[in-house]
Amino acid sequence: MKISAKVREYLREVMEERVAFNHLLGIKFESFDPDAPALRFDMRPDLLGNPSRRILHGGVISATLDVVGGLAIMMKLVHAAPPGADGSDFPNMGTIDLRVDYLRPGRGKHFIATGRVVRMGSRVAVTHMELVNDDGQLIATGGAAYMIG
Amino acid sequence: MKISAKVREYLREVMEERVAFNHLLGIKFESFDPDAPALRFDMRPDLLGNPSRRILHGGVISATLDVVGGLAIMMKLVHAAPPGADGSDFPNMGTIDLRVDYLRPGRGKHFIATGRVVRMGSRVAVTHMELVNDDGQLIATGGAAYMIG
Amino acid sequence: MKISAKVREYLREVMEERVAFNHLLGIKFESFDPDAPALRFDMRPDLLGNPSRRILHGGVISATLDVVGGLAIMMKLVHAAPPGADGSDFPNMGTIDLRVDYLRPGRGKHFIATGRVVRMGSRVAVTHMELVNDDGQLIATGGAAYMIG
Amino acid sequence: MKISAKVREYLREVMEERVAFNHLLGIKFESFDPDAPALRFDMRPDLLGNPSRRILHGGVISATLDVVGGLAIMMKLVHAAPPGADGSDFPNMGTIDLRVDYLRPGRGKHFIATGRVVRMGSRVAVTHMELVNDDGQLIATGGAAYMIG
Repeated sequence: MKISAKVREYLREVMEERVAFNHLLGIKFESFDPDAPALRFDMRPDLLGNPSRRILHGGVISATLDVVGGLAIMMKLVHAAPPGADGSDFPNMGTIDLRVDYLRPGRGKHFIATGRVVRMGSRVAVTHMELVNDDGQLIATGGAAYMIG
Repeated sequence: MKISAKVREYLREVMEERVAFNHLLGIKFESFDPDAPALRFDMRPDLLGNPSRRILHGGVISATLDVVGGLAIMMKLVHAAPPGADGSDFPNMGTIDLRVDYLRPGRGKHFIATGRVVRMGSRVAVTHMELVNDDGQLIATGGAAYMIG
Repeated sequence: MKISAKVREYLREVMEERVAFNHLLGIKFESFDPDAPALRFDMRPDLLGNPSRRILHGGVISATLDVVGGLAIMMKLVHAAPPGADGSDFPNMGTIDLRVDYLRPGRGKHFIATGRVVRMGSRVAVTHMELVNDDGQLIATGGAAYMIG
Repeated sequence: MKISAKVREYLREVMEERVAFNHLLGIKFESFDPDAPALRFDMRPDLLGNPSRRILHGGVISATLDVVGGLAIMMKLVHAAPPGADGSDFPNMGTIDLRVDYLRPGRGKHFIATGRVVRMGSRVAVTHMELVNDDGQLIATGGAAYMIG
């Protein structure tokens, strides 16, 4: 269950560059573990939510969890059928719904979001996600359902 | 149940300028209706999610719905106790959790997010939110719970 | 967009009799409106949750909302392709996920749950639901995603 | 972090007997682990949902997950301040919202629901829950927020 260097590069380019809003958030790959892929982003002033406390905007958290949930599914799909060189067969996926539990204020220097697939059907997949800060504190958890294929 | 010009200006400054990530998203006030405040943002290339289709990133949608849900509560709190001139008494609120249902691909020139309070307790409030595009099509709905006070 | 008497009788039998747990809850049809079907159930001592206050168990609320969400979809499916006399073609559906917002304590003599489809795809449908008591007070709202076909 | 025999008996009586709808569902204590309490119930014909397949009604699942989430919090509260002999100080709690992900059809002879607290505030607590069948298969997961105190 290894991901080839070529597929890694493809995934990295899609997630970090081609998805424009991921690029705006500064999302980078942290782990290509096919069972628990992870993304990382650094704290930046323009990601803050509360004007008086230095904590992440809830929308940055929900966005990142949605992205890493989708990534967890993509890892499974890409492993089953690696994409062509031209990337034309980017797996077709759509988020059906998303839930985020905000557990602690989003304080930290950087953050790591991890996704895991808990149901992989032929048409619908469900993932659980979590966000921790650089101290390993659990900031938020999430669940999402995606339509695939 | 009118919002004074001074409070409007205060809310506008907080929502559009002081919350950095709102500013990054380009969120602007669309309506100060105290029962259904609305925000607006324009489509921009860096808000796209899918590299091959011109649709909003799901994270932009979840972020905007979270913001407008919080705004709906803030309108109630601010109306009950208008903030001081220095903005020191920015209402203290935290999102407990958020759910988003993605109903249609996020296509459009601009988008309007509206929030409504469905439960206003002394400690917890719950809101329903929706996002429509410039054709009035319903793109997403959401629900969120917030801790207040 | 009328539902024939025969189909009504079929739906009533399925929802009230053949789904055993609906029968245990005492769920009855209140409205066959194809856009907003409604179910009704009476308060009973064994549906109580809190031992010291006479309020509905949250599980009765989540169960009823799940049922009426599924019913809202079934009304659309049955209208498009009425079931055979033997009921063999009971539409095949599965709940993907469910969210319930509990807005007020579940006090009342009877309760009415209403469901509405907000997204009807070929494979996934999403509904919004609400529960009111006999005074018309909103007790809970919900959202759910279902796999169909 | 042990739960005394007296408190166990109190919790058992509340959960199994005094909460009427729990009794109707046939919910029994499986584990008093203060960090991961568990409940158990047996499959019964009147808990079925689908008339043609022998699977649990989704409402039984959502009800049980809500109950075990509340129990996980109660274990923390009871441990901090054991209830009086008369049970008058039954901890005051209310579910704010609940999400359930239905992962597999609810087949089995009996089911075990486990709850864990992921956020314990002074006013709001959040739990994660799961339901497995007698083969250890994960049937559903859930998350819920509760108001306490």
